[in-house]
Formats: sequence, C-alpha cells, structure tokens
Amino acid sequence: MLDDVLAKVYADIAPHIGEGRVANYIPALARIDPSKFGMAIATVDGELHVIGDAHEPFSIQSVSKVFTLTLALGRVGEGLWKRVGREPSGTPFNSIIQLENERGIPRNPFINAGAIVVADVLLSGHQPKETLGEILQFVRQIADDDEIAIDRDVARSEQETGFRNAALANYMHAFSNIENPVEKTLGVYFHQCALSMSCAQLAKAGLFLANGGRLAGRGPSVVSAERARRINALMLTCGHYDASGDFAFRVGLPGKSGVGGGILVSVPGKASVAVWSPGLNENGNSATGTRALESFARHTGWSIFG
Amino acid sequence: MLDDVLAKVYADIAPHIGEGRVANYIPALARIDPSKFGMAIATVDGELHVIGDAHEPFSIQSVSKVFTLTLALGRVGEGLWKRVGREPSGTPFNSIIQLENERGIPRNPFINAGAIVVADVLLSGHQPKETLGEILQFVRQIADDDEIAIDRDVARSEQETGFRNAALANYMHAFSNIENPVEKTLGVYFHQCALSMSCAQLAKAGLFLANGGRLAGRGPSVVSAERARRINALMLTCGHYDASGDFAFRVGLPGKSGVGGGILVSVPGKASVAVWSPGLNENGNSATGTRALESFARHTGWSIFG
Amino acid sequence: MLDDVLAKVYADIAPHIGEGRVANYIPALARIDPSKFGMAIATVDGELHVIGDAHEPFSIQSVSKVFTLTLALGRVGEGLWKRVGREPSGTPFNSIIQLENERGIPRNPFINAGAIVVADVLLSGHQPKETLGEILQFVRQIADDDEIAIDRDVARSEQETGFRNAALANYMHAFSNIENPVEKTLGVYFHQCALSMSCAQLAKAGLFLANGGRLAGRGPSVVSAERARRINALMLTCGHYDASGDFAFRVGLPGKSGVGGGILVSVPGKASVAVWSPGLNENGNSATGTRALESFARHTGWSIFG
Amino acid sequence: MLDDVLAKVYADIAPHIGEGRVANYIPALARIDPSKFGMAIATVDGELHVIGDAHEPFSIQSVSKVFTLTLALGRVGEGLWKRVGREPSGTPFNSIIQLENERGIPRNPFINAGAIVVADVLLSGHQPKETLGEILQFVRQIADDDEIAIDRDVARSEQETGFRNAALANYMHAFSNIENPVEKTLGVYFHQCALSMSCAQLAKAGLFLANGGRLAGRGPSVVSAERARRINALMLTCGHYDASGDFAFRVGLPGKSGVGGGILVSVPGKASVAVWSPGLNENGNSATGTRALESFARHTGWSIFG
Repeated sequence: MLDDVLAKVYADIAPHIGEGRVANYIPALARIDPSKFGMAIATVDGELHVIGDAHEPFSIQSVSKVFTLTLALGRVGEGLWKRVGREPSGTPFNSIIQLENERGIPRNPFINAGAIVVADVLLSGHQPKETLGEILQFVRQIADDDEIAIDRDVARSEQETGFRNAALANYMHAFSNIENPVEKTLGVYFHQCALSMSCAQLAKAGLFLANGGRLAGRGPSVVSAERARRINALMLTCGHYDASGDFAFRVGLPGKSGVGGGILVSVPGKASVAVWSPGLNENGNSATGTRALESFARHTGWSIFG
Repeated sequence: MLDDVLAKVYADIAPHIGEGRVANYIPALARIDPSKFGMAIATVDGELHVIGDAHEPFSIQSVSKVFTLTLALGRVGEGLWKRVGREPSGTPFNSIIQLENERGIPRNPFINAGAIVVADVLLSGHQPKETLGEILQFVRQIADDDEIAIDRDVARSEQETGFRNAALANYMHAFSNIENPVEKTLGVYFHQCALSMSCAQLAKAGLFLANGGRLAGRGPSVVSAERARRINALMLTCGHYDASGDFAFRVGLPGKSGVGGGILVSVPGKASVAVWSPGLNENGNSATGTRALESFARHTGWSIFG
Repeated sequence: MLDDVLAKVYADIAPHIGEGRVANYIPALARIDPSKFGMAIATVDGELHVIGDAHEPFSIQSVSKVFTLTLALGRVGEGLWKRVGREPSGTPFNSIIQLENERGIPRNPFINAGAIVVADVLLSGHQPKETLGEILQFVRQIADDDEIAIDRDVARSEQETGFRNAALANYMHAFSNIENPVEKTLGVYFHQCALSMSCAQLAKAGLFLANGGRLAGRGPSVVSAERARRINALMLTCGHYDASGDFAFRVGLPGKSGVGGGILVSVPGKASVAVWSPGLNENGNSATGTRALESFARHTGWSIFG
Repeated sequence: MLDDVLAKVYADIAPHIGEGRVANYIPALARIDPSKFGMAIATVDGELHVIGDAHEPFSIQSVSKVFTLTLALGRVGEGLWKRVGREPSGTPFNSIIQLENERGIPRNPFINAGAIVVADVLLSGHQPKETLGEILQFVRQIADDDEIAIDRDVARSEQETGFRNAALANYMHAFSNIENPVEKTLGVYFHQCALSMSCAQLAKAGLFLANGGRLAGRGPSVVSAERARRINALMLTCGHYDASGDFAFRVGLPGKSGVGGGILVSVPGKASVAVWSPGLNENGNSATGTRALESFARHTGWSIFG
C-alpha cells in the first residue's frame, strides 16, 4: 500500500520536479542537479519503501540538527534549555536580531544560532574530531549504515563562506553562551551540516522519533518515548524556520528541512519519511519536497491533527 | 477511567490552586476568585467528565478566537489567508511591531491583530449586532446549550480600556486590512471576547475539532475533517502566543488559551478538554491550567507526538 | 546681497523644479502644482528677501511642530521631557515600533507620535477649539500677520485618513501618555498640521529661533535665548526624520520639514529661511527645497559647523 | 579668560568627581582611578589652557573614530558613504539589529560597526602594521606630539574580549562590506581604540575641526573647510551614540565620546576642547565630563545653536 502511495505522490509531483532555486552559496551545493527527486519511508515494522533517487546521498545540512539535538539532550538533559529556547522565532533561520533582544539565548535549537549552541554543548570537554566522530557514529548506528560520511568539500566551503554563522557564534560568545573557542564550535557545526545521506538512510535514522524512541519494531531505545515526543513537538513548531506554521497547516506532521533540499518527517506510531528535491522555495525549504509531503499526507490520511 | 484521570490531575494540581496573577486590566476580571479551578472532558463518544468548578461560567476571552476563525473560514474560505498569516509571531499577543514590519498583515488569527481581522471579516455586510448574534448562535449550537451569553459588563470594560487593540485596528485600517469602521470591528471583537462559558460548555463546543469536524459521535459536520485538522495545527503552533512552543513541548496537544484563565485543548480522535484557573503565568496563560493539562497528558498518555 | 544669493539659488535649482513626488494621501495636497517654488529670508535686522512663490500659502504640515513645541515648553517647561524624548528615532516619521520598545514614550517631539503628545499637552484643561485658537494666535503674533489661517478642508481630509496617527495616539493612550480623549487630541494635531502659510510668513514666524528667542532686532522675547538654542538643537538632530543626519551633513543648519513641501531653517544670529517646493524625496522631505537650502548654504557660507 | 572659565567649570563639577561607573570590560580600563579629571582647551589662536589631569594619557577609545574617519575620507573621498551611512542609529553603540535590517551597511561611522568599516577602508592594500603606523603618524602630526602611542595591553585585552565587535565584522563580511580578513580589520580597529592621549594632546589634535580644517592659526590644512564642517555635523548628530540628541540639547556643540571617559568637542571658529573623567553614565558617555562641558558651554556662552 505504501508503494502505491509513493507512486501516487510521484505522479502528483512529477510536473513540478526541478522547481525552486538550488542553494548556491557554496559551489558544492550549487552544482547539484535540480531534477533530482527521492523519497523513502521507513515504517515502525521495519519495512523500507522508496521511489526515485532515494539511495543517492545528498547534503542533509540542517536536518542534522535533529540528530545533534538528540545527542545533546542525552549529554546534558533538560539543562540544555537554559542555553536555548523552545519557541518559534518569527524570523529567518540566520537572523541575529532575536539574539540581541534576548541576550544571546537562541529561540530554539533548529535555527542556526540554536544549533551552534547545541554543537558547543557536544564539543565541551572534547576535541572537534572526537565530537564529529561521536555524531557520525550515532547517525551510522541509528541508520544502521556504516557508509554514511561527512563531505569534507562541503564542510570546507561552508567554513570559508560562513560569515553570518561566525557572527552568530561570536555574538553568543559575548553573552557567554558559547563556551568553546568560536572556530572550534563552528568547525563542528559546519561539519555536521555536511553530513551526506540518502533518503533511505535518513528515513531509517529518523525512525526512532516515530517509534517511541526505539529503533524499528521493539528494538533498542535511542531515547525515551517522552523525549521522542518532545523532539517531534520541536520539529513541528520550529522545524521549518519561519514557515513552520505553514508546514504544520499544509502537511500536518513534524518535519525538519535542510537547505540541501532534504526534509525528514516523523509520523508518530507509523513511520519516518525522508524526501529530497534540491530546489528551494522562498523560505529556504524544498519546494517539490514540501509538495510531495503534502501529497503524501493526503493519500495516507496521516496527520497528527486528526 | 477518565474520572480517575481527573481525580489524579486534581490531586496533582491541588497544591498549586491560586498560583499566578489574575488579569486585572478590567475590574470584571480582577475580582474573580483566584482559587477557582474547573476541568471538563467531552469525548467523541458523547460522554462528559467534569471536576471542580466545571459548570461555572467564566470569561473565555481569546479562546473565542477559535470559534470566530471557524466561522470566518466558513464565510470566506481559504481566501482568509490573504489577510492574515499562519505563522507563530515570536512576539507578545498584543505586539504591533510585526504589523509594521509586515505591512498590516497579522502573523496568525490567534494574536489580537489577527483576531480583529477575523472579526472584521465576519462583520462585512452586516451590523455588529447581527454578527454578534451569529457568533453567539454558532457557539450555542456547537455546545448544544442556549444558556451561553455575552457578559455586557466585561465587553463594556474592554471597550473602555482597549487602547492597544484600537491601535492595532487603526494601524491595519491604514493598510486597508480592516474594511469596516474601526469602532464597529472592535465592538464585535470586544464582545466576542466577553463570551461567558463554563468548562463543560467549552469542552462540548470544541469537540468538533477533535472529532473530524463533527459534533459528538457520527453527528452533523461543523467543518470538514481537513479544516478541523488545520485549525488544530494553528492552535498548536500559535494558540499560546509566544509560549506556543513550550506548550507543545510540555503538553503535546493543540490548545488555545484566554486571559480569563481558560484553555481549550483538542485530542484528535479522542476528546476535547477545557480547563479553567484564573491565575496567569508570565506569558499570560493559565498557570495551574497549564499544569493540569500537563498532568492530564501524562496520566492519559495522550499526545499528538507519539 | 541676500537678493543676489536668492537669485543664484534660483538659478541653481531652476532645472530641478517639479522633481520629487507630491504627497498624495489626501486630495487637498495631491492637487498642488508641483512646479511651485518659493523662498524667503527674514533677517535678524528685520529685512525680508523673497523669490518665486514666496507669498503663496501652502500647507505647512509638520513644520507646525516647531511652533506647538515652543508653546508646550512655555506651558509645562522642561517637564515635557518626561513624556517625550530628545533623540533621533532611526525610524520613519510614522513608525510605531519604537513606541512599543520604549513603552509609549516617543523619541522626540518632531516625529508624529511626539507631536501628538505635544498636542495633548496643549489640550489639557482646554477644549480643542481653544487650543487651536491659542496655536493660531501664537503663529499670527510671531509672524506679525493676522491673515494666517487653518485650512479646514485639509484638516478634515487628514482626519478621515489618519489611521496611522490614530494608531499612534491609541497606543500611547494605552501607556497613559495621552491624557485627553484620543479623538480630541488628534483633532488638535490634524488642525495644526493644516496651518496654511507662505514662505514669507513662515520665515518671519521662525525668526525668534535665529534671534536668541526674540522677534526681529531687539524686539520682545518669545522664548529665552537658551530655549531658542535648544529648539534649534532638536531641529538639527530630529527635524528631518530619518534623514536628519544627511540634512545636517549637506546643509549644516537646523531645519524642520513638512510633507507639504515646506522647510523652515534657522541660521543662528543671522536669519530665518523658509523654502517651499511640493515634490518630496524618498525620505518625505522637499526634494528641490533641500537642494535650494544646500545651494543657499554654499553661496552664503552660512553653517553652524564652521 | 578661558583660565577663569576652566576654574569655574572645575568648581561646578568638583562635587561630582568620581561619579558614574568606570568601564570594566577589560582590566586595563577597570583599574583606572575614577577620581581623575582633566580638561584642555586649544584655541584657534594657538593657545592651550588646561586644568586638572590634563597632561595624563588615557585610552581615547571611540574618540579615535574621528581621526580614522578623517583619514578614510582623505583616502576614498565621498565614496565612503556607499559603505556607511550618515544617520543617527537610534540604537546602542554595539547593536547589530540595524545591520540586519539594512543589509550590512552601518548607520554612521561612529557606531562600532561603522568604525570597523572605516578601519577596513584604511587597511585595504596594506598590512595592519602599516595602517596603524599611518594612523599613529597622523595623530602625532595633528597633535604636534611624537610621544603619542598605542597601549598594546589595552589592544590585546580588547582583542581577547571583543566578541560583539567580531560578530559585527563577520556579519558585515557576509554582506561584502568588510573586504579584508576579519581578524586583520579587527586588529586595526582594536589598536586604534587603544590610542593613549592626554586631554592636551587630544584638544590639539582636534583643533583642525574647529579651525576650518587647518592646524592652529593660518597653519597648513588637514582637510578642507567643508570637510571639517561635515565631520562636525556627524559628531553632532552621531557622536554620542543613542544620547547624541541629548548632548546637542544640553551642550550644543559637536562632540565625540569614548568609553575611556574622554570627550572631544569642537567649537567652530573658536577652539577645540577635550575632557576626561573615567566614570560613565548609563549611555556609556563620561558622566562628569558631560557635566563639565555643559558648564563650559554655559560659562562661555558658546553654542552652535545661537
């Protein structure tokens, strides 16, 4: 049945493949073929359904923030919320205005500033290499796939052009909300964003969020059921930057997007869905990817809102 | 079983009754007894479970915005979204800054500016009395209770002190986003906020949101299932002003709060819950009411996030 | 010699007459002939030099704020500064953002919000008619011209379209910084802005600012020398809204502009200058009027900065 | 006569010596004796009048922005204004909000962001050492004093703690408004702020602003008379951050303050005045220094406003 759904979704979005603008702030992203489209569904029963370019790795970018948040909560628990808020920001993903108004505390862990704080939490007491090793190992483990890697070219490009992120990190350091040297924290952040994963890998890696914190079936727990619920809640309210309300309205499922054109969605109790289409809409989220998820929600009737 | 839940919730919150600060910007609200507490659950099977002061009417204030939004969508359909957005605001309920930055388009229908636009939509082509009659009739019908009334004293007090709301309305009029005379639109708005309802009435009135758009059981449809889902989505992302993210994180259910201390919550597929406790927390939401809903979510395990 | 200067200025600006956009938010302003240009210089010795349409009355609009500020300082003295600041705003003339950030205290008496507070100060203890009578009498006296009048058509139009000003007034009332009924305060404000004066009248009326607070020569004092200096300081830092810095840089003299295309400039110790050209630049100040004053400053060598 | 004035000023401010809070963000500033007070007047006739600790060097900090602006205008002329504005900011000296709203163009050359752009202009085509050498040589020349030096301890401390300035520089680099490597531009900026000068040296160095661009008397020109006027205009509208309006209102003279407690004031046609008192008021300007200048303006009757 889910294969049928994927086929229907594909039929719906086919005329729209290639729409939107591919991110072009670094060459490694700018040269991606805009006609790529992949989608994968990992169910709580352990099934995997795919369509299109679902096995081709792409730069997951901000989708990685879900995984680093999970790790950071494991590391410092709810104390994390002293350093980062849980509210939608009402401003673009890279805005610095809110930081000045709220004295260096980012509004949530999914805007850039918040994810940089999360990276800083993971770095404390470690070297960047160790922290990146831990992130990579975690993602490989939850995706059950040791092939997952960080794209060093992308990371290097990000580092060379990431002046707004450097501004955010320095600004928060001035308010003592970055504890490690700015360049080390940014090093972790730029490398985590350069994680390269396919839709299939991403859907599997995100399954614990839909499955009460566990890997597929009755498998081992990644986090508690309560923590999985709470991460879903954050994805719903903050996962699409200043278009989170619109995504909740149109798709009705918790999701986290990345500027590489990927979106990870959680359907509690049922499945984890990953979609990839590089062209972005005006809010910086995958244009055709969002459309595919809207179609998916309609064909399955899946929604957390009824 | 739900009676047991209510008893457990009551035991949890009993030590906290009276906490928070009662709204005091108008005398009619300031003199409310802060030790009031009521809670009601209306299930999709048509059952009603109550505890405490669940049959005592209180001023529902901004909870009314859910009902006027439902009516306005029925009147103008999705065209409403040309005049009001669907994104969390990142600012307090009565902020005017966002309106200047976004040229008179309020961020969502649940902040004051957005609800004033919704009132303006309902007023167009009518006199305020007719519009208020329509609102009242709608609420009585979905709550199946003709006793529900508007508290004229509260409405008059609001009108006399509502200068920030008058500023919002005039400001939007300057951008042609209020179409009727400002004082008429505000008249509708202040009166809708003065609706007086008990927890029991409120839970019944909100049931259609949890029940696929229908009154209890297989009863008549108030709205389509899709519209009910979408209103739930808006409640989740925007229903608690600038604490919506926190409410989603802690309670995990769509809800709309009012400054009178009431909160209406929707549990899709299961029930509608109303709680009332007049003391407010620093975000202007019921302090003990929020605590009760958190306890309720824990005891039932109900959450839209897994 | 000043006649020569006026001739040179006129030659400089002649190719630019008609540039800019005439204010069109009310019909009475929109129908003004954009090719009008007048200029008048009233010297501290009592001479008057004019060129062009210097005897044709126009709507002085915000230039009136200099006169009402003078009156209000006479009424309540330096206590005025509890209700209005003395800093440039960094925002447009009709912005409301600053009011929210600074709890209803306008940044200075020359932005709209500040001038509305000044009108409210003048109104206290009086009826609008009396206050307007007092303003009119004051302007007639300092201009030594009983012909000066308020244009009722302009005032009525302003009142019908002044929703942003109504927003400002209501907003400040919410913070108790408007003490009279909003509509009365706005009535005074809209009528003062509708004062109709020629360049010749305006230059004479403003002379006390250049002449140590006195009417021409050793005439009677309107205000103390210190107060005249301080009003000049406010004109320099705040008299051209968010282009005040640029005007100080280019012209180097204290000035106050109005949306009717008039500008009043003070040359301490020497003269008062009024210019009128209806077309406005992107900051809402007279385009050719500003150019004329720049030329005037160059030809006279007059500047307060050396 | 100016010696008498200085004596009267000293008598006026004596009871207030030590008021305000000494800047404590770096140890080198925090340990300054708060009871220091010095004042110097350099007249256009070449006289020097001093009182108190007028020959003791202190960290001139932001007063240096006047000198680097002068140099940058000499280097690139009016083209500078493509990269930095000329308007008061309406926000604190280190605010980043305005930069986001105005796409990386600082409002004026005297807020930190603007001065960093000015430093970047001076650095282009040079190494930091060369640029600092040029700045130092310029200041020594206009002050006619080769003893003037940069305090390396202060510069190093600034560099170690200057995260907000690093945020500003990175942010502007993202908008291509910083052209050199951020750390080099900041290196120049932090060192220029660490210039150590006495009131006597500072008054002499600033004299060209009061003297039509020339050193004392009919000496050689530093800048044209017009440029001197324009720098004075910028000092008046922007020289005291978000208290510039207040300084213009109370003192009535163009001035530039620094967080080290120094203020440089220009009296066009007459003199240059420098004052030093380390305790700062809530706006970050010297508390007793401002008071001394107010007293000075009163006793001399000197004001650019009449």
